[in-house]
Amino acid sequence: MDSCIVAQSGGPTVAINSSLAGVVNAARKNNLKCYGAVNGILGILNENYVHMTESFPTEESLDILKNTPAMFLGSCRHKLPKYTEDDSSYIKIFDEFKKKNVKAFFYIGGNDSMDTVLKLSEYARSIGSHIRLIGIPKTIDNDLCMTDHTPGFGSAAKYIASSILEISYDTFIYPVKSVTIIEIMGRDAGWLTASAALARNGVNTAPHLIYLPEVAFDIDDFIADVENQLSIRDNVIIAVSEGIRDKDGEYIAASNAMEDKFGHKQLSGAGKVLEMLVKDRINVKVRSVEVNVLQRCAAHLASKTDIDEAFMQGEYSMKLAREGITASMVCLNRLDNNPYKVECTYAAIKDIANEVKNIPVHWITQDRNDVTKELVDYIYPLIQGEVQIGYKKGVPKYADISHLV
Amino acid sequence: MDSCIVAQSGGPTVAINSSLAGVVNAARKNNLKCYGAVNGILGILNENYVHMTESFPTEESLDILKNTPAMFLGSCRHKLPKYTEDDSSYIKIFDEFKKKNVKAFFYIGGNDSMDTVLKLSEYARSIGSHIRLIGIPKTIDNDLCMTDHTPGFGSAAKYIASSILEISYDTFIYPVKSVTIIEIMGRDAGWLTASAALARNGVNTAPHLIYLPEVAFDIDDFIADVENQLSIRDNVIIAVSEGIRDKDGEYIAASNAMEDKFGHKQLSGAGKVLEMLVKDRINVKVRSVEVNVLQRCAAHLASKTDIDEAFMQGEYSMKLAREGITASMVCLNRLDNNPYKVECTYAAIKDIANEVKNIPVHWITQDRNDVTKELVDYIYPLIQGEVQIGYKKGVPKYADISHLV
Repeated sequence: MDSCIVAQSGGPTVAINSSLAGVVNAARKNNLKCYGAVNGILGILNENYVHMTESFPTEESLDILKNTPAMFLGSCRHKLPKYTEDDSSYIKIFDEFKKKNVKAFFYIGGNDSMDTVLKLSEYARSIGSHIRLIGIPKTIDNDLCMTDHTPGFGSAAKYIASSILEISYDTFIYPVKSVTIIEIMGRDAGWLTASAALARNGVNTAPHLIYLPEVAFDIDDFIADVENQLSIRDNVIIAVSEGIRDKDGEYIAASNAMEDKFGHKQLSGAGKVLEMLVKDRINVKVRSVEVNVLQRCAAHLASKTDIDEAFMQGEYSMKLAREGITASMVCLNRLDNNPYKVECTYAAIKDIANEVKNIPVHWITQDRNDVTKELVDYIYPLIQGEVQIGYKKGVPKYADISHLV
Repeated sequence: MDSCIVAQSGGPTVAINSSLAGVVNAARKNNLKCYGAVNGILGILNENYVHMTESFPTEESLDILKNTPAMFLGSCRHKLPKYTEDDSSYIKIFDEFKKKNVKAFFYIGGNDSMDTVLKLSEYARSIGSHIRLIGIPKTIDNDLCMTDHTPGFGSAAKYIASSILEISYDTFIYPVKSVTIIEIMGRDAGWLTASAALARNGVNTAPHLIYLPEVAFDIDDFIADVENQLSIRDNVIIAVSEGIRDKDGEYIAASNAMEDKFGHKQLSGAGKVLEMLVKDRINVKVRSVEVNVLQRCAAHLASKTDIDEAFMQGEYSMKLAREGITASMVCLNRLDNNPYKVECTYAAIKDIANEVKNIPVHWITQDRNDVTKELVDYIYPLIQGEVQIGYKKGVPKYADISHLV
């Protein structure tokens, strides 16, 4: 019986297991055995697999997996050397492919994972292998090229927008002047921070200022922005990317390293630095909130659109493999925005790996403290719909990952 | 037409508006006009009201209010002086009661709010007023006496348990040794931190260590605990209360004040201090996560048991007032735990205000790094059930609070 291998890599999202479920479901439908390599490409090197089609024999059995956050198969941060410098890993991997009668390998991940797919593709070509090598995107950062957006982003954006709305309710209760700074993930691309704008639901006005890494951050402009907002309203709420930089490209977060009593340099986050700035320059109550890792793993608040698209892309990757496509990544092409409609396509992995997609500057307002309607319209469809996860004993019921622990 | 006034005070929870809805619903059923004072007791002093029974004329119209986080009526941190020292506020408040034909005043809040109810009760007695003064509890800290538990706690506990579970999934993906420290609210009482134990669902083993403010925290014991856990498993997850103290009562968080470049002393949280300790004493990957204000305002993940009980207590407070009870707080009495069953009761406000309920020490394990089954069994019923909130444009649909902004 022919088989395929699927693996996951990079940082968690709540949609990456839905893509995995899509691959497994397509394998099942095509009578392929599907092995899940544990901890990414390391799983192949270490011959550590989960028999996915055996463990999930029906579409229904995949339901919990679809809605489980992070990587069911575990992750890795393993960078393959160039095969021209050291081909030992490649020989091992392609031996495994042969031994297991593997016709296709699917790697679900972000930029680094696409780099692995690219390197495997180059090696495969060099040895004349016909194995299909397909990348399936995922990243909350939404920074992969050639695709309209990436699985995982819509759910993270829904979490950010909903959280900002809830934090606004938490903030508006006191009739005193205050500034609340909310720091959001995204070191280089501001897509996730920009999604804070979707908290403005017609009633709620927050966030009142949004700062992104795509444009230079100026401290004096920032203070003037905050003072201006404080002249309009009591409670000013600010969304800021962890990756904001000044005009010289220096991270704002790096501008205020402190030393703890052990002598460690402690780097404050961008939010904390802005909090201290406001405290120093404006006499007002201020606090900063770092949205923690839940922005990438709160599967209980996933976007149904996102989860469904991730599954669809997992299934589509099998279609590509069967059509003989290789060295490619599954992409999404937006056909219409009203009503929202997308189709799956693909692009050559060499045009994606190691490239980054930033927010176009014309989607950021001229005074660099907010986003345009075009950007909101772009994100809006991606956060629509809620998934119905199950609960057991009062907490979410997710797939059993005891094989990782 | 007779009337009543209701107000809210203290810090936010996701259940406090459900108690408000309960009061309004009971007022409506009893043909009472219900005024909501905006920003707690200040709303009466400033004559700033929302006409609640007009704004919410049916039980159905209260549905969104019930599930809205934080205070629909706004909050305050206003401490009344003793009336024997300065009775001007009291004269104003009781004038308002008279002017509006108010028969009862309901104050939904925590410890400080109960202090206000107590003071108003003492003043009422001194002038022979027959107005009914009733406190309705709420606090995520669960630290009010004379009641089995407080509205708001169950939802916050559900949020903490679910978050720890999701953070575990986020953590277990890498096959490398790591320590993750999760800091949870609760300066004096450890109830909310203890609820982290409910993340252990039979599959997930995290958190592996729990540290509470009720017992002295010892740094050397802590390091030994972590080293022991690291010898058993790769990823150690630790729940810690912001309020942990050493044997001399000094906050651990206070032990590592740093100075920023403006010369401000920056107090790290307890989690951050433990992170630095682990970094210094154990050679392992470590990070700390501060669960932010969402633990008290994430209404999208509320406990249905909590929301329903909060509503019930709101309605019950009206029953008490009509029976002539005053100077009291609504309480919950647990009749059975299997199946879980509670009834509403009440207690004299003087036995509640300014008292604190801590975790009994026999519900903490002997080595002071975990909680007992009794404590888990106590919290377990309180996090059961999920509320179905509505979504609009992809974000939760909550009551319009534009009167506060």
